[in-house]
Amino acid sequence: MDINYASIITIGDELLIGQVIDTNSAWMAQELNKIGIPVKHRLAVGDTWDDIWYALDEECKHASIILITGGLGPTSDDITKPLLCNYFGGRMVVDEETLAHVKNIFTNILKRPILDVNLKQAEVPDVCTVLKNEKGTAPGMLFKKNGKVFISLPGVPHEMKWIMTHVVLPLLPTLFKTTNIVHRTLLTAGIGESYLADLVKAEEAALPPFIKLAYLPNSGMVRLRLTASGEDKDLLTKELDTHFQAFKERVKEFLVIDEDLPIEVVVAEILKEKKATLATAESCTGGYIAHLLTSMPGASAYFKGTVVSYDNSIKTKVLQVPERILETVGAVSEETVKIMAESVREIMDTDYSIAVSGIMGPDGGTKEKPVGMVWIAIAKKGETIAKRFDFRYTRDRNIQLTGINALNMLRITICG
Amino acid sequence: MDINYASIITIGDELLIGQVIDTNSAWMAQELNKIGIPVKHRLAVGDTWDDIWYALDEECKHASIILITGGLGPTSDDITKPLLCNYFGGRMVVDEETLAHVKNIFTNILKRPILDVNLKQAEVPDVCTVLKNEKGTAPGMLFKKNGKVFISLPGVPHEMKWIMTHVVLPLLPTLFKTTNIVHRTLLTAGIGESYLADLVKAEEAALPPFIKLAYLPNSGMVRLRLTASGEDKDLLTKELDTHFQAFKERVKEFLVIDEDLPIEVVVAEILKEKKATLATAESCTGGYIAHLLTSMPGASAYFKGTVVSYDNSIKTKVLQVPERILETVGAVSEETVKIMAESVREIMDTDYSIAVSGIMGPDGGTKEKPVGMVWIAIAKKGETIAKRFDFRYTRDRNIQLTGINALNMLRITICG
Repeated sequence: MDINYASIITIGDELLIGQVIDTNSAWMAQELNKIGIPVKHRLAVGDTWDDIWYALDEECKHASIILITGGLGPTSDDITKPLLCNYFGGRMVVDEETLAHVKNIFTNILKRPILDVNLKQAEVPDVCTVLKNEKGTAPGMLFKKNGKVFISLPGVPHEMKWIMTHVVLPLLPTLFKTTNIVHRTLLTAGIGESYLADLVKAEEAALPPFIKLAYLPNSGMVRLRLTASGEDKDLLTKELDTHFQAFKERVKEFLVIDEDLPIEVVVAEILKEKKATLATAESCTGGYIAHLLTSMPGASAYFKGTVVSYDNSIKTKVLQVPERILETVGAVSEETVKIMAESVREIMDTDYSIAVSGIMGPDGGTKEKPVGMVWIAIAKKGETIAKRFDFRYTRDRNIQLTGINALNMLRITICG
Repeated sequence: MDINYASIITIGDELLIGQVIDTNSAWMAQELNKIGIPVKHRLAVGDTWDDIWYALDEECKHASIILITGGLGPTSDDITKPLLCNYFGGRMVVDEETLAHVKNIFTNILKRPILDVNLKQAEVPDVCTVLKNEKGTAPGMLFKKNGKVFISLPGVPHEMKWIMTHVVLPLLPTLFKTTNIVHRTLLTAGIGESYLADLVKAEEAALPPFIKLAYLPNSGMVRLRLTASGEDKDLLTKELDTHFQAFKERVKEFLVIDEDLPIEVVVAEILKEKKATLATAESCTGGYIAHLLTSMPGASAYFKGTVVSYDNSIKTKVLQVPERILETVGAVSEETVKIMAESVREIMDTDYSIAVSGIMGPDGGTKEKPVGMVWIAIAKKGETIAKRFDFRYTRDRNIQLTGINALNMLRITICG
């Protein structure tokens, strides 16, 4: 099978000194997969002429489509555009449509004076096809050389995404033969990666060569992914689904959902389907669970609100935890977290509530209550359950694990 | 100057299909920079024998130190270890120390039966130096070839970080001559990238060749970074600081802080210094601001709590916003957000409070109140101020921008 691969080159010293995390590449890779273009490499290089030149030379050996992000800004450290002009042997000309667009942004939207460097954004190599950027001043550019396509996009995520969605993704299948790549993912909880592998070993042995199996452990859950690729989409999907069903049946005891969705999306779907509402009372997670639940559009259908009782006085005053409980068994206890859950459910008048209280570290641990110890409670009408967890990680990971496990506990409570 | 570069190779199909975002590389790059080892490339490849082999062959042409993460798990999709054994011409042997460590994890910590695949984690190529992994079962491995060093680490972030911190970072300066890399960053707000560049053009022109300037626009703020590298650390730092002072003086009107810190850290430092306390009342951000503030250790010194009033009933019941205000001017209004701020400040008994209410999208916008419209209020004793913002982005970015601008508004309120 002759596959047209893409390679993603990201440009910027900030990527090599670790000043920013590259989220662009993951999004681009997902979208390329959807239209049947697998990604061969992701390569990050600095804002250096020779390094960018090398990346272009090298990646077109491995891929048909070379996607380049970054280095298109108006400042002197942005050298991608002159380099591409040189690389493809062109000269800089003004693109009138881009110029009108840049002027419109400054005059009518930003209402600020336009500088020379802003106007320069409308200059492009005469050997490229301009890809319109409705969200910013730097246009995308498409170059062709020896049957390969090079596409340069701005590094600002929402600008890159706009050009990808509206211009690049519709265009690529008209330029290249695409392949079929189909993924199926099972999200499991309560079983480690090696036990899961042991559990599905018969199913794994039965997989044909065109279906690849992968395990992705993360935050106490393991995703098991099957990926099929090939020419005949119908046959591929049929075969994949047969094997997927076998895996699903085998892991059913640990199955959270048979889609590649984060737990907050799973919980949101369940709540919407049951027309149930939720509130949270958060101590150690400091609003993280509420943030996860409200990251999704339409959260107001099921989510009513939160009390973050970071300080003990808020636990007493707002969440009605008696002072004597805080003084005797303390804030990180089954008693406290149950009252927190019940109080917030009553205050917010919801069907369910989540409450968490724990010690996230790095300080604040004691011998009896070490860092990573967390109590999680779920309240519903007539019943409140609580469970102790012990995480042994860094603060950010302890917060994340608490949130994910609290949502999974709610899922189990609702679905049984 | 003969520089010893590092290259970071990340292995995993999940990186090429965009199923996970690579946060490891950024952290590794930061830490390598601190010890004077610049990163040349970051290359992500799939779980494929030929692609990993290629990456090793290619990257040792560009770097002295090749750091490899991923593919060391106990399951069949993890092929890094046998590949490295083959690449460096070794054979697999049991490392007794690792074996004892793996057995101890299963017997004494996880208290679960140990599987054959778990025991296999203790097998390593006999041509490597084992790097102890206290946090997991897959040890790190160090190989040497033609004066280059190859280091393989697990992809699980907290395991990778432990081995890097305790083994790799102390070791590298004993194997290679390091260079001096010094960064200085100014965080600015209220000025666009191109205007900032225009403002500092005299200072930019005065920079010597060994100091590089970069602009990093993000979330309505722009970071301006100066990076110096060279042999003589004292001279380098002295020169850099002189230029940095000139830039700082020039941008003072827009300066948030003269360090590379996120705004929540800046606000936390100010609150701690002033011994002041804070509470938040969040509608559209759904706990995001509280989450930012409690991500940092020691947050309990200044942060007391939050009411997330996602549903209007919570605004009325908990935050005392009169129903008639919600009915007349609505939840997204100056009046509502001011009352929210004042109420939460009173309930939580704090020096300052932040309140936000807006429409994050994609749905819920109207002609009068479009998606991206947000009211932010800051309350302190005797005074409450509010300001309207209009963001024009996607939901997640609108939430992020609201949070960052709210924290910056608080900063300005406190510091003047």
